[in-house]
Amino acid sequence: MALIVQKYGGTSVGTLERIAAVADEVRAVRELGDDVVVVVSAMSGETNRLLVMAKTLDRHPNPRELDVLLSTGEQVTIALLSICLESKGCPARSYTGGQVHIRTDNAYNKARILGIDHRRVEEDLAKGRVVVVAGFQGVDEHGNITTLGRGGSDTTAVALAAALSARECQIFTDVDGVYTADPRVVPEARRLDRVTYEEMLELASLGAKVLQIRAVEFARKYNVPLRVLSSFQPGKGTLIAEEAAMEQPLISGVTCNRDEAKLTVLGVPDRPGIAHRILGPVAKANIEVDMIVQNVGEDGTTDFTFTVNRSDYEAALEILKQVAGDLGAREVTGDRRIAKVSLVGVAMRSHAGIASRMFEALATEGINIRMISTSEIKISVVVDEKYAELGVRSLHTEFGLGQNG
Amino acid sequence: MALIVQKYGGTSVGTLERIAAVADEVRAVRELGDDVVVVVSAMSGETNRLLVMAKTLDRHPNPRELDVLLSTGEQVTIALLSICLESKGCPARSYTGGQVHIRTDNAYNKARILGIDHRRVEEDLAKGRVVVVAGFQGVDEHGNITTLGRGGSDTTAVALAAALSARECQIFTDVDGVYTADPRVVPEARRLDRVTYEEMLELASLGAKVLQIRAVEFARKYNVPLRVLSSFQPGKGTLIAEEAAMEQPLISGVTCNRDEAKLTVLGVPDRPGIAHRILGPVAKANIEVDMIVQNVGEDGTTDFTFTVNRSDYEAALEILKQVAGDLGAREVTGDRRIAKVSLVGVAMRSHAGIASRMFEALATEGINIRMISTSEIKISVVVDEKYAELGVRSLHTEFGLGQNG
Repeated sequence: MALIVQKYGGTSVGTLERIAAVADEVRAVRELGDDVVVVVSAMSGETNRLLVMAKTLDRHPNPRELDVLLSTGEQVTIALLSICLESKGCPARSYTGGQVHIRTDNAYNKARILGIDHRRVEEDLAKGRVVVVAGFQGVDEHGNITTLGRGGSDTTAVALAAALSARECQIFTDVDGVYTADPRVVPEARRLDRVTYEEMLELASLGAKVLQIRAVEFARKYNVPLRVLSSFQPGKGTLIAEEAAMEQPLISGVTCNRDEAKLTVLGVPDRPGIAHRILGPVAKANIEVDMIVQNVGEDGTTDFTFTVNRSDYEAALEILKQVAGDLGAREVTGDRRIAKVSLVGVAMRSHAGIASRMFEALATEGINIRMISTSEIKISVVVDEKYAELGVRSLHTEFGLGQNG
Repeated sequence: MALIVQKYGGTSVGTLERIAAVADEVRAVRELGDDVVVVVSAMSGETNRLLVMAKTLDRHPNPRELDVLLSTGEQVTIALLSICLESKGCPARSYTGGQVHIRTDNAYNKARILGIDHRRVEEDLAKGRVVVVAGFQGVDEHGNITTLGRGGSDTTAVALAAALSARECQIFTDVDGVYTADPRVVPEARRLDRVTYEEMLELASLGAKVLQIRAVEFARKYNVPLRVLSSFQPGKGTLIAEEAAMEQPLISGVTCNRDEAKLTVLGVPDRPGIAHRILGPVAKANIEVDMIVQNVGEDGTTDFTFTVNRSDYEAALEILKQVAGDLGAREVTGDRRIAKVSLVGVAMRSHAGIASRMFEALATEGINIRMISTSEIKISVVVDEKYAELGVRSLHTEFGLGQNG
């Protein structure tokens, strides 16, 4: 007998019918002999309904009170699911974040979990009850209600799984796993049975929006096996865990991100501290920078290129023009119509030649690479936006990721 | 500078506009220099919305989980009101029942308050904040969420006023005070400036449904001055407090109750224990009995009459037929089309002759009295339902209760 932590997102509990279906699913696992802790989000639409009320009263609602308001969304779901489980003869107890002392810092609206008092949950499990916990919420040291920010329910589930040494943390969502590429772009994309935490972090941050990055980081830190499953269709989903002893596939997936824009400062006098003098003012304006590339140019000057979120493009451009003048740089250019295509896989570490195979595949399709950035398990290239799908498909084929690959 | 506890019911906070109006009202009191603790109910309709969801999943929802669900209604209101107060420059903090440790027994859905930890509230008041507390809810000794049952928000407000030694507990509702009679029946009915707790208890239980009986009992026990006010129109409302030193009006009001039915067991052999043998089975069936009258009849028999809620009439009749047979009683009769008309007032205690004046006034109108019951501050008569309004009006006039009286 083991302990399973299951997390159901907003669409999985979006209606009373869906809640009843989740209750059946939980009861089925319970009847196989495993203990179950269930973490639920607010019913889909509910958080937005509450937010609209708050913003009608005040465009910038008091953060403490906003968390008191939003945390009711999950509280409604835990009660309804527990009522449903009880009615199906499956003993259940619901708990708010405060009731199981999910202790957080006091950063309202985006709090971080510091610890969980799991005694009460363990007592209930020992009595044969299913424990239903509200995701997304906690309390600070003074008992003030906090929320973890959007997607925080995943983090709640992982934190509970870690605290209770669960065998597995199952994240039920509206997709049935992690794919080698976006199936809408690459019809032959294949569901991955297993990926490592590192791969999942790269896949998530690059647009495969299945899991919150924070939850994956948390799972990696405490070595909690995570499984992404669909709550709408049966299947084994994708297991996210440490590297298996068996041989891993070379490459796990190809992702694409169209949310970024590229900015370049040309002809910057090449002196120490240039990067900081350029990016410092950008960071000060709360603009997050993703890829950064610096090339040595001619005549003791350098070209400095980085990407930002597309919505920050105009603001970043204004700042750069100011900075470029101060630095005596030649010119500032930028491009919004770019896409970042990335190849992700742990095996990249030990296999040379993958990068050149990737660049060759793109060249064969006539796709010009505008920027390159590499990490241990990822190679990203920036290309013109119009080549995004073509790039993804050509790489998917080149590396044999398809269902017939 | 004094402390005022204000309670706003569901219709008073039924929309975002109403919540904004309440915030203005609270801020106005605050600006006059008084400290304010506000207790709020769920927005009108919200508790029913939640209840319907629960009952869709299970006709008899688990009581513990139902309280987890229903308590979110008030939590939404405290957050919205606090957001609104903050946006108007009035510092505010919201608290759920659990957060200010409104400790109750563990009778889910109808819990009773055992104590309140008021330190946190006092700390906030000392910092100049308005404290907004969720009505209707608390926690048991294990931290389980409980609710006080319908109307429990009044009790929360009175309990807080008692714990904090507030100068006054103001109950804002949709009527502007307590009247000498139902203004829909008696157009010249007059708002009372002041009544005693005892009078209010009689008035409330007899159909002037302004305040919950439990809240009035609580206020009397801890000697908390209660004021009933309208949140929709200005006015001083009605103060409910201990008897003033000044002379009280003889009679405070006339009420009418149409919710009851009358049952009679005729010709019961008059032996000790008859009342218990008749009412015992009725009580066992969870049927509440209101008026009870027993007359000594002829030939060593007695007639036994009592009233029950009209919805319990059929069930009570069935039980009585069985009981009557066992007791050797002659006959069981009943009447559903009755009304109970009552005259309430503390001064009745020291003024003889009020009862006979009351009976005479009814006789003058040709109204036959079917049953009489008296207490220290109340005289109730049962009459045919068709005479209800006429009875109320004639007594209102007889005792000079009108605005020109």
